[in-house]
Amino acid sequence: MQAMESIIHKYDHKRISLVEAGVTRHRSIFNGLKALAEDQPNSKLSKPEVVIIHDAVRPFVEEDVLFKVVTAAKEHGCSDHDLEFGTECLQLALKYSHTKAKLVEGSPDLWKVTYKRDLYAAESIIKEKISQEICVVMHTKEEKEHVGHLLEQVLKNELNHVKVTSKALCHAGSDFQQIILEQCYNFVCVNVMTPDFQESKKLLSMLEGSNLSILYPVVVVLVHFFDFKLVPLSQKMESLMWIKEFAKEVKKRNILLCGLLMNYSQDEQKLQESLREGAIIIAALVKERNSGLVGQLLIA
Amino acid sequence: MQAMESIIHKYDHKRISLVEAGVTRHRSIFNGLKALAEDQPNSKLSKPEVVIIHDAVRPFVEEDVLFKVVTAAKEHGCSDHDLEFGTECLQLALKYSHTKAKLVEGSPDLWKVTYKRDLYAAESIIKEKISQEICVVMHTKEEKEHVGHLLEQVLKNELNHVKVTSKALCHAGSDFQQIILEQCYNFVCVNVMTPDFQESKKLLSMLEGSNLSILYPVVVVLVHFFDFKLVPLSQKMESLMWIKEFAKEVKKRNILLCGLLMNYSQDEQKLQESLREGAIIIAALVKERNSGLVGQLLIA
Repeated sequence: MQAMESIIHKYDHKRISLVEAGVTRHRSIFNGLKALAEDQPNSKLSKPEVVIIHDAVRPFVEEDVLFKVVTAAKEHGCSDHDLEFGTECLQLALKYSHTKAKLVEGSPDLWKVTYKRDLYAAESIIKEKISQEICVVMHTKEEKEHVGHLLEQVLKNELNHVKVTSKALCHAGSDFQQIILEQCYNFVCVNVMTPDFQESKKLLSMLEGSNLSILYPVVVVLVHFFDFKLVPLSQKMESLMWIKEFAKEVKKRNILLCGLLMNYSQDEQKLQESLREGAIIIAALVKERNSGLVGQLLIA
Repeated sequence: MQAMESIIHKYDHKRISLVEAGVTRHRSIFNGLKALAEDQPNSKLSKPEVVIIHDAVRPFVEEDVLFKVVTAAKEHGCSDHDLEFGTECLQLALKYSHTKAKLVEGSPDLWKVTYKRDLYAAESIIKEKISQEICVVMHTKEEKEHVGHLLEQVLKNELNHVKVTSKALCHAGSDFQQIILEQCYNFVCVNVMTPDFQESKKLLSMLEGSNLSILYPVVVVLVHFFDFKLVPLSQKMESLMWIKEFAKEVKKRNILLCGLLMNYSQDEQKLQESLREGAIIIAALVKERNSGLVGQLLIA
């Protein structure tokens, strides 16, 4: 109970009530139903029309399946049993409850997380799902026309199956609320002309202010373009060492920050090479979400 | 057939013969047995005493299980059917072959790789398995007494369940053959006094010369200790940029090379902090084996 309470607290869930389990599955279900039926004053939920009983070891349940179950329950009057799977619950309902029942087809993702290998698979499935969208953030509209736009194109070409959208930070307000609502967990923040990362810090504040990183880590890659020939790499490196300390701060909020130095060469071929290498590094950071590499300055 | 042939060629397998499958599983098994029984002159295998038939979608079969199967086959005379699982093969053997049969217990790792999630799980299991041993390489015996030894200790403390062994490169010959024979896939190469990485390059040549990286990628982290206060980080950074190009070369042989710059501070507390951060970065590189990050210089 304590472990569950701390999870609910940590992830700031507002609409969850906790009930103690019984000695068997059916007793546990009964305890849950009783708590809902009693409509207790301190309960966060009022007495519902439809109850869905879900097996927590099948974490990949889509909203769509839940919607189908509710619709079927309203149409067919099944009452208080889990209809997603043809388990013994369904047999009990048919035998004793004098209610009609309907079996709703689930998705293949509804498999049981039982063994250690299932935890590995679940982790990879979540990582793949949240690595499918990258938001490229530009600081001004003008930048968008330049390298930022090129980077966006290369990301689209190199990373198949990944949706790449771009936003200008000057219109940040409502645009970002939308991106955050759409649950994009990956941000590439492009800096070209800006001498420091003040604008990127604004983005990070916005992300910290949202609750996006409560559920999954958010990856933010700060990209700095400059000509390696005109400015020594080492000089840039030294001036950007604050990223290491800053990354430690935002990591506390589950935001994984890395820096990426890219060669903005006048030579078209070199620029393309740098962009491609950068895309591969961004893909690696987004795919692995490894907090051991947070605060690093990478070079493309 | 072509795909299989190219895999056998790529991984340089010497003792594999390929036979075309039949329209059913039993016909495929029959084709395989026929090829073995015929003892063809161009076959790489002579007529065997015991045949083990194994389901390729269960890749995690331990040598131990195969040994048990062979022993049981010799003891109980079962002849030419897969005894690991209670499949219909066993029934057929009992019914038609007039042979005795014995069921040998398999391990839980013998599960079927069927769905995409199973591939994810298999990948993670392999990654976990090969990340369990790290070999710390020192260039001279003297270094071993200093920071190299400290790093070894921190790795042991910070990375639970990971076996950390250390070797001095001066005795490289036979020691390394042993390490490579034991299939260690992770090397941390410590450089303290050496002005360049000539010794590390020797290690990489040895790894390239072995066939270790044929099956799984080998991770090599070149650690360079120096006092960030006495030598500017940027200067070191610039002088080590060759790692990027060098890493591209060895990557062709499935060796994933990264550099790690660590602060060798006189301040005991700072040194410990740097060592701990370094251990976390090494763990991240070893665990993920992400080739997108190859050639990077990381900072602890």
